[in-house]
Amino acid sequence: MGLDTDYKKIPKMLLDSEYPVFEFNKHIIDATQEYAVAYKPNLAFYEMLGAAGYMSLEMTVTYLRENYPDLFIIADAKRGDIGNTSHIYAHAFFKTLDFDAITLSPYMGHDSISPFLEVDGKWAVLLALTSNEGSEDFQHLQLEGGKQLFEKIITTSSGWGSVNNIMYVVGATRAEALSSIRKLIPEHFLLVPGVGSQGGSLKEVSDHGMNDRCGLLVNASRSIIYADVTNKFEDAARLEASRLQGQMEEIMQNHNLI
Amino acid sequence: MGLDTDYKKIPKMLLDSEYPVFEFNKHIIDATQEYAVAYKPNLAFYEMLGAAGYMSLEMTVTYLRENYPDLFIIADAKRGDIGNTSHIYAHAFFKTLDFDAITLSPYMGHDSISPFLEVDGKWAVLLALTSNEGSEDFQHLQLEGGKQLFEKIITTSSGWGSVNNIMYVVGATRAEALSSIRKLIPEHFLLVPGVGSQGGSLKEVSDHGMNDRCGLLVNASRSIIYADVTNKFEDAARLEASRLQGQMEEIMQNHNLI
Repeated sequence: MGLDTDYKKIPKMLLDSEYPVFEFNKHIIDATQEYAVAYKPNLAFYEMLGAAGYMSLEMTVTYLRENYPDLFIIADAKRGDIGNTSHIYAHAFFKTLDFDAITLSPYMGHDSISPFLEVDGKWAVLLALTSNEGSEDFQHLQLEGGKQLFEKIITTSSGWGSVNNIMYVVGATRAEALSSIRKLIPEHFLLVPGVGSQGGSLKEVSDHGMNDRCGLLVNASRSIIYADVTNKFEDAARLEASRLQGQMEEIMQNHNLI
Repeated sequence: MGLDTDYKKIPKMLLDSEYPVFEFNKHIIDATQEYAVAYKPNLAFYEMLGAAGYMSLEMTVTYLRENYPDLFIIADAKRGDIGNTSHIYAHAFFKTLDFDAITLSPYMGHDSISPFLEVDGKWAVLLALTSNEGSEDFQHLQLEGGKQLFEKIITTSSGWGSVNNIMYVVGATRAEALSSIRKLIPEHFLLVPGVGSQGGSLKEVSDHGMNDRCGLLVNASRSIIYADVTNKFEDAARLEASRLQGQMEEIMQNHNLI
């Protein structure tokens, strides 16, 4: 579940607390955690509020760790820089904050990613094929030799780590591409955003992208956390999370995974 | 000048202050501002310290604005996300913090960049050819039709804005490529990191990359701010900044720019 918590969309009754973004997250987490396997704060929404936003982020990660230690926590941060700087980012997300995983942009190559792979038990989630319109601009470029750019990025970068520390972002709005990606990396986990507000279908994603251990982390954000913006927001979020979880359960049964 | 301010490398006498990273930046800025046209905080080093680091970042930007309003301020952040999220990042860096420019990764395409171009008077600085080893992995890939990936990214993205709101990052360690990039975008400003600790040469960069209005923002970070780590750090930083500025002045005279 994506915690893209927009200050402007928080129910008004929470705005009096010192850290309204954290307060909202706390309520949303408590209401939905039984239907989620992972939470994914989107860093932009915290940075928008400056140091106070960063405090809400720290409190959210700590709250998850302390109350729901089995849940996986992903920083949706899309970082990536020269090696020296990526080491510092790895420290920021895996030590200062206790995230399990972070999304990364692969454009700067291996030394921009490897510092994240060197931290035991943590995951790098590389952008492969994203869910937005602009993914057409570069990700599908045809390379000499016949591959598309996103395919080359997947085959090259999968050698930098293992199925136990690298995942890939593949947008739910590109379900048809999931089949060809599964041929390149049958075992890797895929983080799939774009179900919900962005229009992706859970069934299509699963039909094209599931492997024999499931292999998918499907994300929805706005469709759950803003399902209602009145004082009924927790019930509405729980209902929407439960609805998606029910769909996923049925799909997993049909794939003989549970 | 890059403000890659590593808490662990700050002179010990500053560690007693509430925001030592800001204190260090303040001293470095006062010591070097007469030789600089721009400052470029590297976000990783602030995020490493959590909310307190973010506070140091806010204080640094405010200090620059209030005391040296003519200096240009670049967030070295390498962001880039779906349009909805990039709008929020643009707010974070151009409204919450009053940066003039931000570095961005182009992999997600036009809607990941355009929200930054919609803010009047602000700049998007797109990664083209970076100074690190990993730049060989993808940036030089040959596309069908003969272009390399970084060339395609430059020609496509330069149409998203103008010479007045887009710059490109081209590493100083790739001086030979600057000439071919200048043929693609004769008028755009280039942000050139990699002089100093990373080994790039100011003369080579200038010979290959200058245009008739200079067109270069050359960055050095560690070689200046850590020139000395004792209580003489301000003098050492000033000396190193002055040395680089002197070299740049001589080069600009030789190019008849001043």
